[in-house]
Amino acid sequence: MGVLLGIDVGGTKVAFAVGDAAGNLRASQRRPTSPSGRGEIDVAVMIDDLRRLVAEAGVSLRDVDAVGVSVPSPLDPTRGVVLNPPNLPGWHEVGVRDLLQQAFGVPVFVENDANAAALAEWHFGAARGFEHVAYLTMSTGVGGGLILGGRLYRGVLASAGEFGHAPVEWDGEPCSCGQRGCLEAYVGGAAWTRRLRQIAPPGSRATALAGSREALKPEHIVAAARVGDAFALAELARWNHYVARGIVWIVMGLAPQAVVLGTIAVAAGETLALQPIREQVRARVWPFLGDQLQILPAALGSTLPYRAALGVALEGLRAG
Amino acid sequence: MGVLLGIDVGGTKVAFAVGDAAGNLRASQRRPTSPSGRGEIDVAVMIDDLRRLVAEAGVSLRDVDAVGVSVPSPLDPTRGVVLNPPNLPGWHEVGVRDLLQQAFGVPVFVENDANAAALAEWHFGAARGFEHVAYLTMSTGVGGGLILGGRLYRGVLASAGEFGHAPVEWDGEPCSCGQRGCLEAYVGGAAWTRRLRQIAPPGSRATALAGSREALKPEHIVAAARVGDAFALAELARWNHYVARGIVWIVMGLAPQAVVLGTIAVAAGETLALQPIREQVRARVWPFLGDQLQILPAALGSTLPYRAALGVALEGLRAG
Repeated sequence: MGVLLGIDVGGTKVAFAVGDAAGNLRASQRRPTSPSGRGEIDVAVMIDDLRRLVAEAGVSLRDVDAVGVSVPSPLDPTRGVVLNPPNLPGWHEVGVRDLLQQAFGVPVFVENDANAAALAEWHFGAARGFEHVAYLTMSTGVGGGLILGGRLYRGVLASAGEFGHAPVEWDGEPCSCGQRGCLEAYVGGAAWTRRLRQIAPPGSRATALAGSREALKPEHIVAAARVGDAFALAELARWNHYVARGIVWIVMGLAPQAVVLGTIAVAAGETLALQPIREQVRARVWPFLGDQLQILPAALGSTLPYRAALGVALEGLRAG
Repeated sequence: MGVLLGIDVGGTKVAFAVGDAAGNLRASQRRPTSPSGRGEIDVAVMIDDLRRLVAEAGVSLRDVDAVGVSVPSPLDPTRGVVLNPPNLPGWHEVGVRDLLQQAFGVPVFVENDANAAALAEWHFGAARGFEHVAYLTMSTGVGGGLILGGRLYRGVLASAGEFGHAPVEWDGEPCSCGQRGCLEAYVGGAAWTRRLRQIAPPGSRATALAGSREALKPEHIVAAARVGDAFALAELARWNHYVARGIVWIVMGLAPQAVVLGTIAVAAGETLALQPIREQVRARVWPFLGDQLQILPAALGSTLPYRAALGVALEGLRAG
């Protein structure tokens, strides 16, 4: 297999990748998204940028097998059309797949960002070799993607894996989605940040690290927990507990071999997050399911956007 | 496609079917399981019974394409080996697939009963034509099976779909599985029966219908609710509510097109169960997922065991 191209369209940054089916990057570039107000124009600029990167990498367009694109929801993945993501102003039913297909003359595959990240961790990262994988990322929000039976499972409107908005407390904390008690309302970065700024004691090490309570973020909790700050440890224990609640549902319902956790779990690491989460999940799922399960930190780190887009291209070719 | 044979091995009854790929039954028979104390002997007797039924149906064994078998968990579906189901005394690692393959000389496929029922409702019943389906049955326990992306999803050790033992109340009611707060502890027939016998007021219509509180069963609640008994209506509302909690997780996580509910939901019907469940699910899931979702009563009724076994045979041939 030859060259794969990738574009990861985020709300703040666009990442471009020239790589291959093993996830190797020959060239990569990242720039601010800076939407023009018209999605089609933004895509045209991205096509120019990607062409330039291909040229800089010394790659001939004839060697390109496919382009993969990771975009924010909602989208229609069958037609490769981005509908109207709240964080991409001016994007309304943008036919990303057709525009790129015309430009590069190869198959183009489009997935939402959570599915693309799941594909990346499965093809190139922590979930390599597993057949049944749930991927969960907890950055601003909580996103998820599912590899089931050795392929991406999309569900209706490609929106499977929205575990972030399933209820871990019925009628619990209000969530930004308008519902209550969602997993995201307990473990999403934005929700946790709001909570921390309300309840952090002024004397906490976390507050000191942030400079002020108004500047507190999950990263300060992780740093303060590492040096034994009581408030930070209690907050992280609560975070771990709710993450475990979500994983228990996934394990009982889907019997996966691996659950891969991104972002905050990776930052907090083994002792502060992964080990306590594993213990709580094992205590609540059936033993034979717990025995078969691995809960792993995501492996791709800052290369995720590039690899996510390449993963979409690879999966598109693979699944035919 | 020619003739399909099926055996549904339950804890109390064995069902035999001679049918076809459309789920039509040419002959069927049901008898008590009466375990001999040795699984291999029980299977040999079943083989004789099935051979006799085939002969009675006037079918030649040369026209048989496959045999499907539905068995209680746990099993190893790849090898077709039944491990040690608590309700089949004397069954320890019984090689059902190999024994039947030797007897009939055609491919034999083995699935657990929940997966087999899901396949039956998908191929022949309420879920026909859908690509993403969750099937939930709430008889004694709560079982589930998943059709995802147009095929049965099994997960690790073919144990996906155990939504009955996912937590609808964290640290809630004790469940017979040893955990707490499981969906089954709220909506499973056995758990509900125990609760009813403890809390039913002597004056309730349900108690009168049962003869005594000790004889109360979910069916009496359904009958009493139909004539407006307050206790029965409150109990059914509670039951509907917890069923809806379980479905919400399934919908947010898997974005299915259909959720098919068996047993108690079918008995209670549209007004008493399905409509209130639909309303509560719609109120809690994302609107576009609710719009795409159908919550349907299982359609196969008392023919389920025969059709479940035929569904296993059909799916085995279909999936190759």
